[in-house]
Amino acid sequence: MPRQAFTAEEIVVQKQRIMDEAANAMASEGISQLSMRALATSVNMTAANLYNYFPSKRQLFIETTQRGYELLDSYTKEGVASFEEPRDKLAGLLKSAVHFAHDWTGYWELMVHPPLQLREDLENGDSDLTGDLRQRTSNRMIDLFTKLLSQSGVTLTPPEADSSMPGIEGIAENGFGPDTIWVRMITLLTNTHGLIDLYNHKMLDGFNVDVPPLIDALIDSSIDILLPTIDQPAPGLSNER
Amino acid sequence: MPRQAFTAEEIVVQKQRIMDEAANAMASEGISQLSMRALATSVNMTAANLYNYFPSKRQLFIETTQRGYELLDSYTKEGVASFEEPRDKLAGLLKSAVHFAHDWTGYWELMVHPPLQLREDLENGDSDLTGDLRQRTSNRMIDLFTKLLSQSGVTLTPPEADSSMPGIEGIAENGFGPDTIWVRMITLLTNTHGLIDLYNHKMLDGFNVDVPPLIDALIDSSIDILLPTIDQPAPGLSNER
Repeated sequence: MPRQAFTAEEIVVQKQRIMDEAANAMASEGISQLSMRALATSVNMTAANLYNYFPSKRQLFIETTQRGYELLDSYTKEGVASFEEPRDKLAGLLKSAVHFAHDWTGYWELMVHPPLQLREDLENGDSDLTGDLRQRTSNRMIDLFTKLLSQSGVTLTPPEADSSMPGIEGIAENGFGPDTIWVRMITLLTNTHGLIDLYNHKMLDGFNVDVPPLIDALIDSSIDILLPTIDQPAPGLSNER
Repeated sequence: MPRQAFTAEEIVVQKQRIMDEAANAMASEGISQLSMRALATSVNMTAANLYNYFPSKRQLFIETTQRGYELLDSYTKEGVASFEEPRDKLAGLLKSAVHFAHDWTGYWELMVHPPLQLREDLENGDSDLTGDLRQRTSNRMIDLFTKLLSQSGVTLTPPEADSSMPGIEGIAENGFGPDTIWVRMITLLTNTHGLIDLYNHKMLDGFNVDVPPLIDALIDSSIDILLPTIDQPAPGLSNER
């Protein structure tokens, strides 16, 4: 029987199906348990055929991480779209990131807890594969922070066009106190990260309340506490940066 | 050669050595990768001998979780010991929890990200194995929160002697806004959890600063922002509870 030819579009669809299935398997079994052979079975392919799409597990991990950033990007883009105010856009962005991490736990885990070898690969040269999306996501966030803070009477130097996370290094110069903007930004992100992890591992179930509205309320609260708007400035929140 | 007899104390030491080695293996390879056979090799035992100490992987997981709580308990007890003020004790407790999670990542991961089956076992009957220590740790934390908040002019009903996490269920009645104490408590713990996870996965390295002082500063800041003392009350922090 002649080998069937696929169009480029069909190949993309097949690869996405494989990566989604890999993400599901990693969500339930753990990243380190992923077996190319078992994955092939669960997508009804021979192992040889799977290797036509992804020549190695490393390549599968890299492309799956990339697709994770694409999915996160589309979630967060939609999460901010229907809001006008920077504060509401920021809340929408953080909530949509939580929803992404919950809907697609396998992608999220691969992005934030990559296997050691993959992390090294990404940091030493393959970062161009995910770098652009990571950059776009973080730029969108910095943009929102900047707008929100300027509403609070705080002006940050606008990020330069192609610099990554501008000014973060300044944290050492600017001190670590609760008065610095960076500490409040980092705390907001750290808090969201912790919330995602506890949510995904069902550790918020002990509260005996409906978890999704609890999540949304905790994110709204953390923004209101950490980045108050001009109507309610925080004590000691310096506008000196 | 006759089988060597161990004293009870020697058996305890052997079991701890095995559990520490299991924790190290889980920290680097992941919990799901733990193999009893490989563990036996790395502690220079036959697999049969290892099974004398831990008759099953499930039993190893349960006792290792328990030892994790014991270690966390001794870290946090020491973390608060040298301080007088409730605020400083709270900072000491959270920082020592971060240090525990970093020094003993394998124990921490097993405690917070247990395999699904183990979680179910612990919730359905074996919780007495770890319940008491978990309870003691959470009581110490509630006690500190209560003292700290009373300094801020906020009085919480003191926890009843043998109730678990008193009043947390009240979060639904009390609303989710930033004005409620519970939201600030939860945010402080969520933030610490996120910090631990980012620290352990080397995701704070991008800041180009010395990470341990950054951690300590972020914990101090989060306490100062979220649970301000009476000298600097937070806007909107109700003293109604």
